[in-house]
Amino acid sequence: MTDLRVAVLGCGRIGSMHADLLDARVDQASAPVVFDVNAEAANAVASKVGARTASSLEEAVGADDVDAVAICTSTDTHVDAIVAAAAAGKTIFCEKPLSLDIVAVDRALAAVDSAGIELQIGFNRRYDPSHKAVADAVAHGAVGDVHLCNITSRDPGPPPIDYIETSGGIFCDMTIHDFDMARYVTGSEVVDVFARGAVRIDPAIGEAGDLDTAVVVLTHENGAITTIDNSRKCAYGYDQRVEVFGSGGKAASDNYHEFNSVLATERGFLRPPLEHFFLERYTRSYLDQWAAFVEMATTGGDSQVGGHDGRAPLVIGLAAWKSVREGRIVRTDEIG
Amino acid sequence: MTDLRVAVLGCGRIGSMHADLLDARVDQASAPVVFDVNAEAANAVASKVGARTASSLEEAVGADDVDAVAICTSTDTHVDAIVAAAAAGKTIFCEKPLSLDIVAVDRALAAVDSAGIELQIGFNRRYDPSHKAVADAVAHGAVGDVHLCNITSRDPGPPPIDYIETSGGIFCDMTIHDFDMARYVTGSEVVDVFARGAVRIDPAIGEAGDLDTAVVVLTHENGAITTIDNSRKCAYGYDQRVEVFGSGGKAASDNYHEFNSVLATERGFLRPPLEHFFLERYTRSYLDQWAAFVEMATTGGDSQVGGHDGRAPLVIGLAAWKSVREGRIVRTDEIG
Amino acid sequence: MTDLRVAVLGCGRIGSMHADLLDARVDQASAPVVFDVNAEAANAVASKVGARTASSLEEAVGADDVDAVAICTSTDTHVDAIVAAAAAGKTIFCEKPLSLDIVAVDRALAAVDSAGIELQIGFNRRYDPSHKAVADAVAHGAVGDVHLCNITSRDPGPPPIDYIETSGGIFCDMTIHDFDMARYVTGSEVVDVFARGAVRIDPAIGEAGDLDTAVVVLTHENGAITTIDNSRKCAYGYDQRVEVFGSGGKAASDNYHEFNSVLATERGFLRPPLEHFFLERYTRSYLDQWAAFVEMATTGGDSQVGGHDGRAPLVIGLAAWKSVREGRIVRTDEIG
Amino acid sequence: MTDLRVAVLGCGRIGSMHADLLDARVDQASAPVVFDVNAEAANAVASKVGARTASSLEEAVGADDVDAVAICTSTDTHVDAIVAAAAAGKTIFCEKPLSLDIVAVDRALAAVDSAGIELQIGFNRRYDPSHKAVADAVAHGAVGDVHLCNITSRDPGPPPIDYIETSGGIFCDMTIHDFDMARYVTGSEVVDVFARGAVRIDPAIGEAGDLDTAVVVLTHENGAITTIDNSRKCAYGYDQRVEVFGSGGKAASDNYHEFNSVLATERGFLRPPLEHFFLERYTRSYLDQWAAFVEMATTGGDSQVGGHDGRAPLVIGLAAWKSVREGRIVRTDEIG
Repeated sequence: MTDLRVAVLGCGRIGSMHADLLDARVDQASAPVVFDVNAEAANAVASKVGARTASSLEEAVGADDVDAVAICTSTDTHVDAIVAAAAAGKTIFCEKPLSLDIVAVDRALAAVDSAGIELQIGFNRRYDPSHKAVADAVAHGAVGDVHLCNITSRDPGPPPIDYIETSGGIFCDMTIHDFDMARYVTGSEVVDVFARGAVRIDPAIGEAGDLDTAVVVLTHENGAITTIDNSRKCAYGYDQRVEVFGSGGKAASDNYHEFNSVLATERGFLRPPLEHFFLERYTRSYLDQWAAFVEMATTGGDSQVGGHDGRAPLVIGLAAWKSVREGRIVRTDEIG
Repeated sequence: MTDLRVAVLGCGRIGSMHADLLDARVDQASAPVVFDVNAEAANAVASKVGARTASSLEEAVGADDVDAVAICTSTDTHVDAIVAAAAAGKTIFCEKPLSLDIVAVDRALAAVDSAGIELQIGFNRRYDPSHKAVADAVAHGAVGDVHLCNITSRDPGPPPIDYIETSGGIFCDMTIHDFDMARYVTGSEVVDVFARGAVRIDPAIGEAGDLDTAVVVLTHENGAITTIDNSRKCAYGYDQRVEVFGSGGKAASDNYHEFNSVLATERGFLRPPLEHFFLERYTRSYLDQWAAFVEMATTGGDSQVGGHDGRAPLVIGLAAWKSVREGRIVRTDEIG
Repeated sequence: MTDLRVAVLGCGRIGSMHADLLDARVDQASAPVVFDVNAEAANAVASKVGARTASSLEEAVGADDVDAVAICTSTDTHVDAIVAAAAAGKTIFCEKPLSLDIVAVDRALAAVDSAGIELQIGFNRRYDPSHKAVADAVAHGAVGDVHLCNITSRDPGPPPIDYIETSGGIFCDMTIHDFDMARYVTGSEVVDVFARGAVRIDPAIGEAGDLDTAVVVLTHENGAITTIDNSRKCAYGYDQRVEVFGSGGKAASDNYHEFNSVLATERGFLRPPLEHFFLERYTRSYLDQWAAFVEMATTGGDSQVGGHDGRAPLVIGLAAWKSVREGRIVRTDEIG
Repeated sequence: MTDLRVAVLGCGRIGSMHADLLDARVDQASAPVVFDVNAEAANAVASKVGARTASSLEEAVGADDVDAVAICTSTDTHVDAIVAAAAAGKTIFCEKPLSLDIVAVDRALAAVDSAGIELQIGFNRRYDPSHKAVADAVAHGAVGDVHLCNITSRDPGPPPIDYIETSGGIFCDMTIHDFDMARYVTGSEVVDVFARGAVRIDPAIGEAGDLDTAVVVLTHENGAITTIDNSRKCAYGYDQRVEVFGSGGKAASDNYHEFNSVLATERGFLRPPLEHFFLERYTRSYLDQWAAFVEMATTGGDSQVGGHDGRAPLVIGLAAWKSVREGRIVRTDEIG
């Protein structure tokens, strides 16, 4: 069987990672072409993974030796890239968020639909084996009817302020993963949103119009209530936990420590901090995400994380911002 | 040193437990007199702990061989009992909640103040060594500035419907412990409350006007945000966890399993369920609570959990009910 | 039902504890009489638990208002006390070790047999719920055929040298609990013993002819191999763990920390040390041990931990000493 | 900087893994040449990693575009391969065990010495971050003087009988890793060995002259005592734990579960089995092992796991076999 040939669009931190994985660690896949508006970034990745650089996104998307595209460019260019790739008939992987604009999202989804191609959104955490075990347990009825879901998601440190300024803010950039997770593990859509936030870590984050500490309460169609807590700065590592509680018990995922040892003295039992950040915690999820994409693209199956799964968390994120601004519960159907 | 002689008022489940502890397990304390409006209940406890029964609450409170009273009667009688005991100059222990009526609470606190005696509220969880370690770590600055606090509190099963009907509902009966915990571990008062709830376990609870599943978000004076989740029915035991997260890390308490063993087979690693309920989990906290009371009563110190600590969680509980009914954030100063 | 009246013989640390438990915390039992060769010690305990003191062991054993005796005197007096109590027809609880002399042990067991009374040996750890869960899992076949058993047993600090001098040494005083545990959890007798030891903690222990650090390998009748490791000084608390491994998996017990909290910072996750020593760790086992004794004494059942269970670990302990001295495997049938 | 070019000798399971790692995941390294006596096996690996095949071991070892060799051939050919590679002046990585014959080992080490090249033995577990944390803690004095060391090492299932027949048996094939670990984490040589073993899993293993269940006790020069327990068949996964106990406390490493989730119901808390085997557990150690090798080979440093580290565990393994056969403690200086 020949490899699935993926053009990597965008050679920043995440695009570079995907190119590396496709080149060295994903079976049945390769990355023959890469593109970035910054030629230097494109050349660096191309050289590392033995790819050629394309002179334009269109060239990369349209290349004959390309079966699929991985859209890792800046968020505001995702929709145009999707439209171009759909027109070229390529299978599409797109990083989250799809866009910050619901109208634009709907334009992208319409292009995908009319082209009859498949789109997979980069909600990689669904492929983390620990979180997946939670979702599977719930789906198999192991916790009974779902009553409560608690998600903790704390980064080791905030991103640069210039990143924050175009990120869509904490709810559309960071919490959006948790909104996806809430839908994924409970198996139920979100009907309303209540959010509270604060600037506790860096005043510059507040000056950029964002929050660095947040709590969100979601009500699901099935009556379950989800709480999410976020922080942009966690002293002890990258803290990512999910718990679903129901009539039959609970399923929960937990973190890994940097390594698994303990030092016990008269002061107590000391274990190392958690794995530092997403590259350490989620590498396996990125690999399994690519395996699912390759499987879908080569067998003609449906996307496991399709356009609606990209759209719904954005709606929740926009509702969360509205809730913070207006101090009230916001229904998702107020957004779109 | 002679024992502190405590009259136990109310011989139901919790009064009977306190009488037992005072008789057999609390150093420097005894329970020479017990009282209950149900003479049979009083006789049973009296016989078990070698006490005499009083024919009225007033007689018990006023007895010469009584230094202090433990008020374990029904909630609606707490305030009158406090007023009577204050008038008699006895040191007072009173179970939570103080009352369901803020005006009545203020009457009780005024009586205590003018009598110049000390009142300790039965928020026993403050004396649980694990939760106390969280509070101490926060107080000593070990987690830095407090940003978030998460409290999980789930009972193994709901109380009888007739109990629920006079209980003040989940927020004033069950969550009130968590409201106290939030104030205790963060060291900061609550300024506003948002609550959501549902009836998921037993429709009869809803018919009684109560909820069995709830989420509450509190904003504290110091800017910290607390989330609380409650359920009246937890399949795997009594789940009681507290986490305080701040700029320097986090402090958290966890549960005990029924016993500490594991069975590992090809199916995985199986540990027993959690300790069943509060008698199992919190016995040590009840003992340490009495030790603090005896110390206070015999040395003339101040109460560690005084009248204000009884009043503040009730205000939060009433605000939570108002929040659920009105679907909005409620400021605590709207209540009283 | 009337209480089982237990005469407590020996009012040192362990006798005092048993008197307290019988008085305050064991249902259906009381301690009306206590005895110690040191009258002051006897008076102290008698006053605490509301008992009278006997002027001699014989008086205590023979008292009409005594149904059973708890032998907590020094090891060298156990056998005579057993013989006296058997002659008086009392049900007997005896602390471990039965004796340091196999001939004497056999004299005691013969007296018990001919009197037709029951004897329970104080191997309290069998009643620890965590260790018991291991034994039960093995007995129910949950780990399949038993292949290996690992026991870790480390004290927080060594006893006084004058205690050590008459204790029978580490194998007959401390490891004897582990020898019992190995028989209990594997359900199989020991056929040979290999032991290594060292003096690493205090040279005075070596000068007293004892070891403070030891490893023992036991071979069981069923082919299982047990390893035991001991230390008289463990910096992080009282470390008591048992693991049984077999064809189907393993069952294991673990320790409790002083309390169940964690502090997570950039330095890592810190939990408190383990519970300090046996009074903290094993209180519940002492209570369940007494419950079993009371049940046996009042219903006429058989002892769960009878004379043979007292004798066998002593044989193993003596074999361990012989193994260390002679540097070889010693069969238990070489001892007696 | 140019890559370190490593010829991979032997294309079985372990050689194939090393070729993959060198090709795709080790920075600054490549595998341009592979060799196996089975041409088909060599071709398969060559094709996978883009290497050429050599027609003989000598050709591979002597190639001009080869800086180093990775000896992954059958154990009985290790020494000749080392001698050839030393003569060719290549830096050598050799899988464990060096050989089953001490005389041959000494011939290999002499060749290495006289060639002045470096040899690194494949005791990869030293590079497992959890075990390394134990060794580092001990080396930094965090546990004080070392008194005891416990190593548990259990495979998920036995190897094929034809592998066992030429493996040197459990002590030279499997436990040899633990002998290395004992030296590594305690930082002290072994002076004597006591071993017990049994055939409990498969009679065919016994018929092949081997054991499948074993316990070993080692005495170290510094007085520490190590216990090792082994099983060839562990129902719940690959169980690899190390604990070093000393005057100041203990340092210990633990396993990873297949994933990090829990399902809690009224039956208890269920976590998944352990990672299946060494490819899952020790991938990171293989990568870090290669990083150390590349660093050594390119900077001219000393081997971290040199010839003596390959020889000493073999001596212990042979002593363990002698101990089982003769039923006694065997000094390592009896072996060589």
